Order: sequence, then C-alpha cells, then structure tokens
Amino acid sequence: MRALVLDSSGPHAVADHRPRLRDGEATIALRVGGVCATDLELCKGYMGFAGVLGHEWVGEVVDAPDGEWIGQRVVGDINCPCGVCATCRAGRPTHCPTRTVLGIDGRDGAFSERFSLPTANLHRVPDLVADEAAVFVEPLAAACEIVQQLHVKPSDRAVVIGVGRLGQLCARVLALTGADVAGVGRRSASLDLLPRSVRPVLADAIEGEKGADIVVDCTGSAEGLAIATSIVRPRGTVVMKTTIHDVQGVTPIPWIIDEVTLVGSRCGPFAPALRLLAAGLIDPTPLISAEFDLQDGVAALEAAASRDRMKVLVRP
Amino acid sequence: MRALVLDSSGPHAVADHRPRLRDGEATIALRVGGVCATDLELCKGYMGFAGVLGHEWVGEVVDAPDGEWIGQRVVGDINCPCGVCATCRAGRPTHCPTRTVLGIDGRDGAFSERFSLPTANLHRVPDLVADEAAVFVEPLAAACEIVQQLHVKPSDRAVVIGVGRLGQLCARVLALTGADVAGVGRRSASLDLLPRSVRPVLADAIEGEKGADIVVDCTGSAEGLAIATSIVRPRGTVVMKTTIHDVQGVTPIPWIIDEVTLVGSRCGPFAPALRLLAAGLIDPTPLISAEFDLQDGVAALEAAASRDRMKVLVRP
Repeated sequence: MRALVLDSSGPHAVADHRPRLRDGEATIALRVGGVCATDLELCKGYMGFAGVLGHEWVGEVVDAPDGEWIGQRVVGDINCPCGVCATCRAGRPTHCPTRTVLGIDGRDGAFSERFSLPTANLHRVPDLVADEAAVFVEPLAAACEIVQQLHVKPSDRAVVIGVGRLGQLCARVLALTGADVAGVGRRSASLDLLPRSVRPVLADAIEGEKGADIVVDCTGSAEGLAIATSIVRPRGTVVMKTTIHDVQGVTPIPWIIDEVTLVGSRCGPFAPALRLLAAGLIDPTPLISAEFDLQDGVAALEAAASRDRMKVLVRP
Repeated sequence: MRALVLDSSGPHAVADHRPRLRDGEATIALRVGGVCATDLELCKGYMGFAGVLGHEWVGEVVDAPDGEWIGQRVVGDINCPCGVCATCRAGRPTHCPTRTVLGIDGRDGAFSERFSLPTANLHRVPDLVADEAAVFVEPLAAACEIVQQLHVKPSDRAVVIGVGRLGQLCARVLALTGADVAGVGRRSASLDLLPRSVRPVLADAIEGEKGADIVVDCTGSAEGLAIATSIVRPRGTVVMKTTIHDVQGVTPIPWIIDEVTLVGSRCGPFAPALRLLAAGLIDPTPLISAEFDLQDGVAALEAAASRDRMKVLVRP
C-alpha cells in the first residue's frame, strides 16, 4: 500500500508499505491528510521518529472490533495512552508517559492507505462537515486547547503572533470569545487570510499591541517567546503554542517582575473542534493552498515548507 | 541621621544622612529592618539603584498628614504607584509603570532612622505581633502572593526548591493549605529550620519528588528553573519566585509538550500576611540568625550573604 515514510534517509513515498494493523484497534482508510509543521520538524530529526508520517487526517473505518464503527467517517485523537498509569487515572491521558503518538512517537501515522488507531480515539464526523474541513480537526483542537486551559474573557485583548497554519486557527478560536484579537504576521498574504473577527497587524507595527492581556506565540521561531514577553501586560498570560527547541533573547526577569504567566499548550479536545466546524463558526477551508497525491508526499512536504503555503493536503 | 546608603562605591553606613521626607507622606522611625537577597543583588548593580537600602521593616509613624497615624506601629507596601494610570485603574498598582519602590527603585529605603512612605501604603501592626515577626511581613506577603495567584488545593503535592529566607516562608504558607509540601535544600542546617508542616528533602534526593503538582523555584540560582521543570508533572505549575538574570539549561520544549504553566511571582498582599502572624499560624522568628546596629549595616549585608545565615536584622 502507498504511504509516506520517514527513515534515516529522509521522507519518501513507498508503494509497498505493509501497515501494522494492531489487534483490537480500528483499521482506517485515509480520505484526506494535512501536513503540519511538526511533520517538517520530524523530517529534521525531532523526536527521532521513523515510520509513516501524518497525524492530521480524516478517514473511514474499514475494520474494527466493534462493528458499529465500520463505514463511519472519522477523525481521531493522536495520543494513544496506556489507560492505567497514575497520569491516565488522573485524567491526563494525553500526557501518559508511555503513550504512543500517531505519526510522531512510536506509532505509524496516517499518510498511508490504511492505518490503525484504538476505537476509543475515534470521533464520528458529522455529515455537515466536509473532508476538507474535517482534516483540520487536529490543529483546531490544539487551538481550542488555549480556551480549555485559560479563561479568555470577552473584555480581553489578545494577540496571536504568527499567522501561519496554527496561528490562523488560534486567532479564529480566540475571536469566538468576543475578545479583541489581533493576528500579527510578516506578510500581507497571510494577514489577508484572517477572518473579519481578527484584526490584521503587520509585524512592523507590533509595538502598538503592547499591554495585551493574552499573547499566543505561534511564530515557530526561537525569538517568539521574547517578542511575546515584550507585548504582554503585567500579570498577563503568554501561551507557548510553538514547539521550539531553543530560547533566544529570553531572560526570565520580566516574567517575575511583571508576574507573567506562561502556559505551554499542545494537543486539545476533538469534540469541541468538531462542534465548531459543524456549526459553521470556524471555516478553515480558505487555508488550503495545495493538494497532492499521497504518492507525491515528498513534494507535499516541500510545498508545506515554503513560506507561500498554508495548509497542504494529501489524498491517497 | 544614621542610614545604610548604596552608591557607586558600594554600600556604606553614613551618620549624617538627611532623609528626603516627601510632602503628604508619613515620616516613619525605623524600629527593625530585615536584609533581603534583593538588597545583596542591588549592591551588585541590580536595577542600578543608588540611595538608602531597605524594604523589609517595621517602624513607628512620627509624622503624617492624617494625625491618626502618628504613634502607630506599622509596616508598609513597598510599591508606590501613581494611582491614576491605566495599570493602576485596572487594579494592578504594584505594576504601575511609573511606580517607585522603597529601597529598590527611585525611592530611599528603610535602613535609616527616618524615612518616608505614603500613608496609603501603611498597615497597622496588631499588638500581638512583635517587631521581630512584623519585620517579616514583606517577604511573607511575597509568599502569600503564590496562593493569591494560584489555587493550591489540599490534595496537591508542592515542592519548594531552595529553603533560604524566602523559600522557608513560601513552604510555610503552602503548607497551610493542607497540601503535601516538601522543602528541598542542600544543607541540613536549613532543612532543620523547616516546621513540622513541611517535609525536609535533601537536594540529592530531589528525584523522589518528581511529578509534583506545583514547584516553587526559590533557589536564587540560574539553574533553578531547569530543576523545577524536571520535577513538575505534566500540566503542573512552576512558580518563579527567584529574581534571576539568566536562564541556564532551559529549553521551553518540556513546557510545551508537558503543557506546564509558569507563573512569575513578586510582591504580595500585606493584610493576609499580618493576619497569619497575628493568628500565630506562621512563626518566622526561628529564621532570625543575627542582629546588627544600623551603623554596622555593611557587616549586616556581609552576614546575610553568608551561606550560614538566614534572616539578618538591623536596628537603629
């Protein structure tokens, strides 16, 4: 079967991939996959991952221990926890220390004609939600994680720094609270994609956003945290949404003197993301900038790495 | 008048200091002062401060615009805000951008026979609270700031790293919640000062504290934040209580993957600190390890810098 595989020689499409279909799990046929910045990081060696890439997807269940799932169009939580450890029992399964993560850690991903996931991870996609929207559920859930972690108030002023793939979704979700949300970007092409609910701000003018209650770092760059720190108000909150490896130009002094709260934020809840899509409150489809066949997956990765691309989709 | 003054030649006692007694403020006669790690940092150039040192104190009002204050034994908030800017009006006067700070920023401090502070900053000390306890109100308020910022639950496990002057008080306040509180220190002499409500843990055994819900960095060292990060559980909270200038060995990756919340924490509320002292729920007096005359203030600073000293007091 066709798949996009990462190994020590880099990412490459294979035609004869044999999926490891795990006992007791659902077998899923990929319908559409989405390329994420994390996929690009994995290709650079992040997590030391080897295997099938892909954790943003919508698919159809073709086999499952519980027959009711078969034929359903689904998305799925990418973290596969043990379910029995202290962390799982404390209600934090996405932080299970022995978890596998679809296409990221210890488990083949979704960029494959067939792949496997526990049925406990699956969410049925409402008919109202097209594949091209459903493929955004995983990053939209990550955006929803911000409002899961923080009480964002309608009277707050929030700034999302970086309006790439994830920043676009974070800004949209924050704006649903009624807060004054600015999206800060370097390129007008990205700012033009922001919905009416988000104020576009060129990076050169970010000084005007000083004193924000909440600043979300979606820059994907090592400088993002220092920039966010310079914009947030005393006792404000910086959300760290970017998985960066090094901090640059950051000293904790302003965090302490200004009593800033920093919140690391990762994967989020799928059910609210699906509700927002089904309700039409979030429309991610303008962010789709290219589509590739799965067999051209390497080209899809290259396209996603280009500054001019937002979301790149792959189809089997 | 005698005072302990910091200038470009370092700290030195002067006999002929002329206090700048500000119009409309109370004039206070120092009864007892306490040396803080921040005083030692100021002597190394932190904040570029020059003037009379001292921000931990108990004194007696000898003059005030409102005569009712005269003769009262008082402590006082060290931040003097403008009261009219947006930050002040938003209820964050301790973060007023034009504030002066007693003995730290733009305002002579308390290590002087007479000094000046707005009456709005003053808190009467209940008769039950001796000078030797009242002098701890400022750092005890800073410890209370943690429970002002965070909901510490009785079922939480909290770890205070560093059981020096401030860590001792933070551990005592956290233990009042009913939480399981460990105080981690390098030296048994410091651990021996912990009350029964706090579990003493040698730094060598800190690995056993992994998975804590809340970790408070009171190390006063650049490594503290990395150590705290290694101990906190996923979705746990690290409180940054140490005013450090550089981070060492910290990458934000675990903050994001483990969704850690970091909270900068500085000055706190005086009224609860006074209530805890008056109620006998916190007894800081075992932390007093030396007393000096104000005229020997330089020796007091040197003593406070020694690893073997906890709180050093000065008396006029």
